[in-house]
Amino acid sequence: MANSLELRPDGRRYDELRPLSADRGINRYAEGSLLLKWGNTVVHCTASVEDRVPPFMRGQGTGWVSAEYSMLPRATHERTPRDVNKGRINGRSSEIQRLIGRSLRAAVDLNRIGERTIWLDCDVLQADGGTRTASITGAFVCLVDALRTISGVDALVAQVAAVSVGKVNGVSVLDLCYEEDRTAEVDCNVVMNSRGEFVELQGTGEGGFFSRAEFDEMLRLADTGLTALFELQRQALDLSASEKPIFTRVSKNT
Amino acid sequence: MANSLELRPDGRRYDELRPLSADRGINRYAEGSLLLKWGNTVVHCTASVEDRVPPFMRGQGTGWVSAEYSMLPRATHERTPRDVNKGRINGRSSEIQRLIGRSLRAAVDLNRIGERTIWLDCDVLQADGGTRTASITGAFVCLVDALRTISGVDALVAQVAAVSVGKVNGVSVLDLCYEEDRTAEVDCNVVMNSRGEFVELQGTGEGGFFSRAEFDEMLRLADTGLTALFELQRQALDLSASEKPIFTRVSKNT
Amino acid sequence: MANSLELRPDGRRYDELRPLSADRGINRYAEGSLLLKWGNTVVHCTASVEDRVPPFMRGQGTGWVSAEYSMLPRATHERTPRDVNKGRINGRSSEIQRLIGRSLRAAVDLNRIGERTIWLDCDVLQADGGTRTASITGAFVCLVDALRTISGVDALVAQVAAVSVGKVNGVSVLDLCYEEDRTAEVDCNVVMNSRGEFVELQGTGEGGFFSRAEFDEMLRLADTGLTALFELQRQALDLSASEKPIFTRVSKNT
Amino acid sequence: MANSLELRPDGRRYDELRPLSADRGINRYAEGSLLLKWGNTVVHCTASVEDRVPPFMRGQGTGWVSAEYSMLPRATHERTPRDVNKGRINGRSSEIQRLIGRSLRAAVDLNRIGERTIWLDCDVLQADGGTRTASITGAFVCLVDALRTISGVDALVAQVAAVSVGKVNGVSVLDLCYEEDRTAEVDCNVVMNSRGEFVELQGTGEGGFFSRAEFDEMLRLADTGLTALFELQRQALDLSASEKPIFTRVSKNT
Amino acid sequence: MANSLELRPDGRRYDELRPLSADRGINRYAEGSLLLKWGNTVVHCTASVEDRVPPFMRGQGTGWVSAEYSMLPRATHERTPRDVNKGRINGRSSEIQRLIGRSLRAAVDLNRIGERTIWLDCDVLQADGGTRTASITGAFVCLVDALRTISGVDALVAQVAAVSVGKVNGVSVLDLCYEEDRTAEVDCNVVMNSRGEFVELQGTGEGGFFSRAEFDEMLRLADTGLTALFELQRQALDLSASEKPIFTRVSKNT
Amino acid sequence: MANSLELRPDGRRYDELRPLSADRGINRYAEGSLLLKWGNTVVHCTASVEDRVPPFMRGQGTGWVSAEYSMLPRATHERTPRDVNKGRINGRSSEIQRLIGRSLRAAVDLNRIGERTIWLDCDVLQADGGTRTASITGAFVCLVDALRTISGVDALVAQVAAVSVGKVNGVSVLDLCYEEDRTAEVDCNVVMNSRGEFVELQGTGEGGFFSRAEFDEMLRLADTGLTALFELQRQALDLSASEKPIFTRVSKNT
Repeated sequence: MANSLELRPDGRRYDELRPLSADRGINRYAEGSLLLKWGNTVVHCTASVEDRVPPFMRGQGTGWVSAEYSMLPRATHERTPRDVNKGRINGRSSEIQRLIGRSLRAAVDLNRIGERTIWLDCDVLQADGGTRTASITGAFVCLVDALRTISGVDALVAQVAAVSVGKVNGVSVLDLCYEEDRTAEVDCNVVMNSRGEFVELQGTGEGGFFSRAEFDEMLRLADTGLTALFELQRQALDLSASEKPIFTRVSKNT
Repeated sequence: MANSLELRPDGRRYDELRPLSADRGINRYAEGSLLLKWGNTVVHCTASVEDRVPPFMRGQGTGWVSAEYSMLPRATHERTPRDVNKGRINGRSSEIQRLIGRSLRAAVDLNRIGERTIWLDCDVLQADGGTRTASITGAFVCLVDALRTISGVDALVAQVAAVSVGKVNGVSVLDLCYEEDRTAEVDCNVVMNSRGEFVELQGTGEGGFFSRAEFDEMLRLADTGLTALFELQRQALDLSASEKPIFTRVSKNT
Repeated sequence: MANSLELRPDGRRYDELRPLSADRGINRYAEGSLLLKWGNTVVHCTASVEDRVPPFMRGQGTGWVSAEYSMLPRATHERTPRDVNKGRINGRSSEIQRLIGRSLRAAVDLNRIGERTIWLDCDVLQADGGTRTASITGAFVCLVDALRTISGVDALVAQVAAVSVGKVNGVSVLDLCYEEDRTAEVDCNVVMNSRGEFVELQGTGEGGFFSRAEFDEMLRLADTGLTALFELQRQALDLSASEKPIFTRVSKNT
Repeated sequence: MANSLELRPDGRRYDELRPLSADRGINRYAEGSLLLKWGNTVVHCTASVEDRVPPFMRGQGTGWVSAEYSMLPRATHERTPRDVNKGRINGRSSEIQRLIGRSLRAAVDLNRIGERTIWLDCDVLQADGGTRTASITGAFVCLVDALRTISGVDALVAQVAAVSVGKVNGVSVLDLCYEEDRTAEVDCNVVMNSRGEFVELQGTGEGGFFSRAEFDEMLRLADTGLTALFELQRQALDLSASEKPIFTRVSKNT
Repeated sequence: MANSLELRPDGRRYDELRPLSADRGINRYAEGSLLLKWGNTVVHCTASVEDRVPPFMRGQGTGWVSAEYSMLPRATHERTPRDVNKGRINGRSSEIQRLIGRSLRAAVDLNRIGERTIWLDCDVLQADGGTRTASITGAFVCLVDALRTISGVDALVAQVAAVSVGKVNGVSVLDLCYEEDRTAEVDCNVVMNSRGEFVELQGTGEGGFFSRAEFDEMLRLADTGLTALFELQRQALDLSASEKPIFTRVSKNT
Repeated sequence: MANSLELRPDGRRYDELRPLSADRGINRYAEGSLLLKWGNTVVHCTASVEDRVPPFMRGQGTGWVSAEYSMLPRATHERTPRDVNKGRINGRSSEIQRLIGRSLRAAVDLNRIGERTIWLDCDVLQADGGTRTASITGAFVCLVDALRTISGVDALVAQVAAVSVGKVNGVSVLDLCYEEDRTAEVDCNVVMNSRGEFVELQGTGEGGFFSRAEFDEMLRLADTGLTALFELQRQALDLSASEKPIFTRVSKNT
């Protein structure tokens, strides 16, 4: 692994994240909003509070968090036709928005937000790998701002972020860009809370297989990356002294 | 009309455009791209070149320009559900993207771009009135950049931009924001070329009527606004000395 | 323009309408119905009264007017597949039915018809140009009959009709047939009330441009045509002496 | 059954058809067209010739006949929303157009029309019972005219028409109107050729049952009605002396 | 017809059913369930009781019976793509499920089951002809079991089953397999009750014609087959002595 | 964990699979088929060979494996409406069929099956938890049989099976039934090959979190279960002596 540095197309070390920048409050109307640039991947996230829940949940006094994910047609290298012209969302987008929704629901005590739905919209303006982990990481920031307009951050049970890891040309690497993702032997997405517990874990041998040892190595890389991502979220949120502690408290299942 | 100044919610004069800024080249992959901020309206435009034309045009040696228009769910004050979840594009979006397409096709000599389609994607990130005129005005800039990658700007036959005018509380005004648009008695969208000729003209008495005199007054306001918009486009394009003349040449029907 | 007569495919003068005939009451069930033959264009219009309004309008004590437009598959020279087989209405039809709806809503004081929807269905049995203006002109007659079954004609605020004008081979002409429409440089649809005010105005340079002078000339032709169309509507309605005056009263925005 | 006369809402005898009139050639463009008024039921039929067959039939040198059936929204007593707004054809229309297609394919030797599709469009302008039998009976006339533009009538193998019979209030009746159809205990549709052979036969006990004897009685009534319908078709077609014989020849399966 | 035996691909006599076996109670959750093997045709039927009726029936104190029919993709010789991927049910399936629904509604007194819907799901696991008649025959057994969980079998008004008959190579045969169905000149589906009355009757000359005499002969064959099918249903239901009489009582329309 | 035995609703030990039975060759037409009963979960799997690949893969000489997953309406405790009636596949099914497809593609060397698609259809007849792992495990058997009809089993690169593990009431358990799944704190699906390498790994904290230690414990349980599942597959396939070795060879990425 000595010369793995040379393997990455953008010159990064195997355990190095791409440059990140977050622009919070980009939308005048939304209860929370963030433009997250993560390398060449750009995701536009908003949180919207709606004063009702889906029909199957009505009258139970509890809230809901729902996510939607989409890509602009020219987010990709070649233009991709819009889903609406085929009359239905494509399988990949559907799978991703379900993942985002599950991940962010884990961050909230749904009993403390009343009968409200918080919609998290993640629209990819430009895609260079890692759009689903960028969506989760960015949507968390919007979610916190949306909670501030309702119940306050006490309804938070954890700080949640996500990162990708994988095996490319036989080497485990952190935060794959599109060029790496396309040829990776293994591709994992790791969603964690800031106490180091898993929210969601998905590993895929892209047409191949991976051993337990390889998997363990990738999880170690994910840990490194997530530490930086949690810090980025805290900075983006510009946390006040009184709010900071909540991001270390993780109490849901313990 | 003396005190019409006071009527506008954002303190503008009746003949004043909102502040505009244009950020060109925001997308690494697209052949042309522009982020246009027009007051609180924000439109993300890209141009994509595809090396084929729709089936009904194949084999004729001529090209095509097609536009698509959409709004992010939280572009609006209240979140609007995505069209894809209903399985079809809504009537308003369909009408607007047809208008954008017609307007920009008028700017190009389709015989000079080969059997290619130039896709113009206009995605509204934030909506505060005038999204269709912002889309046309912004898409023109992307179109020019896309032409540069194919045939050069000689395929251009005109510089095209658009602005809204209307009658609000009995006063003719330029460039309506959402709050004005919502209560306007008349709403017009004017698409022109830089020689002062019409490309497209749509006037709607929103449940009421308007006289010929009122219409003439609105067209005069549109003229004022478009002069500034043509200049904005030229600045955004950062025209070289040799390219500038083409924007004064308008030869298609003359 | 001296020899413009010779230019029209059916021998008409440049300012001459095609022959019109209207057959009212063709449908036993509908509250209003009309078969309008306008040259070779044939439109079947009905008005249907429904005792409820769309969800977003409920409980406000006001009514609604909604239009739908469609063409039979063989209304056109070549058979056109039905929209239903593609699962959605096509963009052109959607645009047209929105225009018809807006135009006819302007004719009615929605506060005077109770919480009812008046549906205006315009189905083109044969298409030879001008189907949208025929739909508006015909639907107005059905609307009046539908109002008679509810509130009486007092809910009318204007008599509304529509005509097309355009520029064909460099000459401004009234009421384009399909052969003219297909090659026109400019195509305008003008919706007016019987006091000479505009309801809706749409001008399109079909891939080209038009000057203010050309536009003014076309509006003069539209005026000529609309005078005849308003008279046709009055005859079709077989107005009683007591009802006639309402068609000169236009009070909505004055 | 002596007083069955009194049972029918429009004063007809139990074995009497409603008044029929057929207006042929109503469409300038279609290869065949007919407006069939059958009591208060009005069906607009066209035949369109398309120079290709569906993909699964290509290259076999044989043709195809396909039917489509639809109702205008206000063909019915209460307005029925258009199928296109739900994104799919309703089950009843789908079932009817399949019946029309099968019935008319039986009338043609598909090997003698080349690789062409003849589309039969049946659009119900007003519905008062018997719309599917009117569609079949009317479409046959259009089909003959379409064949004349291709291969000549030699490709015909039979004259085909259809009629409904049923049991209403315990009495067998011919040609049910809507008021009868709605309360009928049995409803049968009989498609025959002019030699008295069946093309298609559908009997439905509407929530109940019917005996063999009742069925036989209804078939006798159908026979009576079809004799008149075959004559109506011949008159509508204005058959020349040389063409008449083909309508007595029925050779396909014998 | 002496040597018609030799004509059938599986060696059956012209009046012989294929081997049948019924496995009742295959589903732990459904109120009624049956796996019916009929030659190589295999249909999986369930009955589900839902405590509400469709919107248009609410508040009338009466129930509803609704059927749905589908085929697994590889029920057929070649794999057939799933309907859901085209966004709508195909015409054939729609037609069949409407037939199943009508046939089974005739078996029940809807006034005696309360405001409930009984859903009959017929899913074809393997198709070798006669899937619609197998669905009806099998769904009846499920329906009886579902009624036992509600109102008891008193709500039954008849025992209903179905069989196909047809003319193949000029010979009338009972219970067509796919190989016969595909080349049949006539194809009839006969739905009857156990007193010998018709519920539904559909005869189709597959591109040809059939005489009254041929039709009568086919009905005689259907009678033979249905006697055996009624017995099969009774055995599958394992009727207790007290329940048996209800299957001979048929009182709805008499 | 001493008394974890008592926690399971069906009396199983925490590391015990439910009873399994596999019925191979249930479909006369499919190239491979299996009915897999796994506790009360019943999945009907088929493999179908189609002599073409999706458009984007044509001309590359390589094959494809595609999976589709669906549930019969009454597979569940309460009846679930069919997807086709909503016009699109639901998100959960879409996600599952993508997982099945990826898992089984890993088992095959796509370069050795020619330009063919192997369709794996997994239809759930009854659902009691673990339907996706049953689908993968069952589809593998069908896939082997399908390969035998093409290229022989040499195109296999691994034996693949799947099992679920989770944490229920604080205890890690193998093979969750629906009652456990519904209340589980963690739910993991593990897809492995018979050499102990991962194909796909998905862990979800159902609204909560899980530690690394808990995850490791669940993976150990998965290992136990998969050993039995690989043996079940071999028995179902009734492997000949010459074929057995291939199931120990796993060579793709090594």
